[in-house]
Amino acid sequence: MMEVEWTEKGVCVDGFKAAGVRDGKYGLALIAADRLCAAAGVFTKNSAVASPVLWSKKAVKGGLSAVVANSGCANACVKDGFNEVRETADAAGRALGVQPARIGVASTGIIGRRLDIKIVERLIDEASRKLSTGAGASMDAARAIMTTDTKLKQVSVSFKGVEVGGICKGAGMIAPEMATMLCFITTNAELSSRELQAALDEAVQKSFNMTVIDGDMSTNDTVLLLSSGRKKCRIRDFKTLLGIVTTELAKMIAKDGEGASKYIEITVTGAKDRTSASTAAKAVASSPLVKTAFYGVNPNWGRIMSAIGSKLRINPMKATISFTSRKGKVAVFDRGRIGDLDKAREVLKEKDISVTVNLRMGTGEATAFTCDLTEEYVRINAGYN
Amino acid sequence: MMEVEWTEKGVCVDGFKAAGVRDGKYGLALIAADRLCAAAGVFTKNSAVASPVLWSKKAVKGGLSAVVANSGCANACVKDGFNEVRETADAAGRALGVQPARIGVASTGIIGRRLDIKIVERLIDEASRKLSTGAGASMDAARAIMTTDTKLKQVSVSFKGVEVGGICKGAGMIAPEMATMLCFITTNAELSSRELQAALDEAVQKSFNMTVIDGDMSTNDTVLLLSSGRKKCRIRDFKTLLGIVTTELAKMIAKDGEGASKYIEITVTGAKDRTSASTAAKAVASSPLVKTAFYGVNPNWGRIMSAIGSKLRINPMKATISFTSRKGKVAVFDRGRIGDLDKAREVLKEKDISVTVNLRMGTGEATAFTCDLTEEYVRINAGYN
Repeated sequence: MMEVEWTEKGVCVDGFKAAGVRDGKYGLALIAADRLCAAAGVFTKNSAVASPVLWSKKAVKGGLSAVVANSGCANACVKDGFNEVRETADAAGRALGVQPARIGVASTGIIGRRLDIKIVERLIDEASRKLSTGAGASMDAARAIMTTDTKLKQVSVSFKGVEVGGICKGAGMIAPEMATMLCFITTNAELSSRELQAALDEAVQKSFNMTVIDGDMSTNDTVLLLSSGRKKCRIRDFKTLLGIVTTELAKMIAKDGEGASKYIEITVTGAKDRTSASTAAKAVASSPLVKTAFYGVNPNWGRIMSAIGSKLRINPMKATISFTSRKGKVAVFDRGRIGDLDKAREVLKEKDISVTVNLRMGTGEATAFTCDLTEEYVRINAGYN
Repeated sequence: MMEVEWTEKGVCVDGFKAAGVRDGKYGLALIAADRLCAAAGVFTKNSAVASPVLWSKKAVKGGLSAVVANSGCANACVKDGFNEVRETADAAGRALGVQPARIGVASTGIIGRRLDIKIVERLIDEASRKLSTGAGASMDAARAIMTTDTKLKQVSVSFKGVEVGGICKGAGMIAPEMATMLCFITTNAELSSRELQAALDEAVQKSFNMTVIDGDMSTNDTVLLLSSGRKKCRIRDFKTLLGIVTTELAKMIAKDGEGASKYIEITVTGAKDRTSASTAAKAVASSPLVKTAFYGVNPNWGRIMSAIGSKLRINPMKATISFTSRKGKVAVFDRGRIGDLDKAREVLKEKDISVTVNLRMGTGEATAFTCDLTEEYVRINAGYN
């Protein structure tokens, strides 16, 4: 076992500074490295893609010196929105004294509205003067990209001097009108872009891609990883650290889902392979019926079985479905036998719930992260609260 | 244009009788033909399939003399549930004097509970004595299969003596705990099983398959079509009549969605082909974000674009999104230009709303049927109302 240390640095790990500022609806986060960093990125696959995503996809290939991200406007589905992205990068380049082409740009907020470049330029100036490695700097940056998030999301870990830190804001269906999940991760691990990209792809697959609850991708989803390369590092160790950071951030997103009253972790075991397990876990996590049942403290295992059966060939009579919380563990359905549903109701009264489904078809395993579906979610997204 | 006549017969068209009875949570519908009918069926593809579906899939191949359907228990995910199906068919066979193997069986209700065969047998006896062609008989049958439905669903039409009638109950996500859409259609059109099956597949594709809102299929979904063959009929005319019946029933299901305050019809035009159009229309109809926005009278076209873009390669800058209701029509987004959103809010205040999306990529067209997502939906499905 690696003795991983949890730190308070956020993205201000070895070689990085950060700042975050606000002006009304607009927030702006700046993350600046002390050198050109090897970088990697994962982006939305939505074809109604926002202009900053197109910019950052290209920028990441040559490495990144900094990241600038605004909340308050997604700069998506806007004619000539790319102009505002270029002006944003130009402004950040001037303020930091680096090439605009080496700056990652990300936006989150309402779709279809033009970015107010005057406000963004002013915020970039302000943020660049506040850049710091202080304890609060990364938190300021995390706060600046929040939209409907109620909690700031920051994680950082270190192991033998190798540091990995990240901040993010809510995702997909969870924070939907504010179209986007944004996540920025920094490290001092000396690795190539290729190694960083491979590690990031793998980490995102098991974390953020297991959190998007409706299977929809927003127009702006962006994950950027920057490495200052100041510390030698075994790729295996880096992957472990990166996995901790992305999984913790993914859980934070699920816990802070709009209107959420419960956090729910769904683990499918005994699937044919990992892909099947992942499909099954996401099917359960995406089902409004399952999610409303958890809200209602209703041990409706039939909805879980039906959600899996609709996406995967299974034999319900071989499966076991269990619920676990601080109140204990109960198998509500075990190969045809129905368990103690009164006990199950007790277990479901807790705020943190684990669901385990064993399909007994193979060794594939995967976990999805979600929350319950509440009336508050509807109120928030109907937009009249 | 065909001069189609709307009738009040429901499934009691030429050659058929019906009855419906209730006892507490259990309801039972019986539809009996005066001969062995050519028949066709469409069933759930969920692998957690209910026993009555397995029975009816086999039965339909040899033709059907009758259909017996119960509400109150889905007979799904129950060990040896097939025994109860066989006993149900046996009881109906005795009561009607026909072979049990020629009786279609369907169930709807909670998953994981054993069918109370004593109650079902008693209800079959009662229903068989009440079988009639009277105006109320089909409505009684439609009422007997209702679960969370608030309105009975029945349509029948005729053209030159060819009659097609149907009854159904709510579907998929709309009536979810009560796992199932059930639909029974009768006709006197003289057509082969093969012709009936082809016509039914096509009709279901454009109606019920465009109504399942979360893309999930329940464990029990069943559509059965029986023909008494008493009237010669052109296949083209029959398809038109069948299409009217299934589409009207699909609309009734959407309008009667759990907690629904608005009915929403989504038509995508200008897609590459019909499949793409159908994917796009269903993506919009399945989006909780789009559905909550309509509930909130919120003309959030960005969510519509994002829902389509996440499933289909599109160019938003070529697309037009319009809303229509009794208050008029407004293009909220037209190739980059944002329309009159105040007018849009007025249009969205109505209860019946049409959304049209023109993608300008081809000639593919499809329509999906859905409703808004409300707090009442959450309350109903949390199960504590």
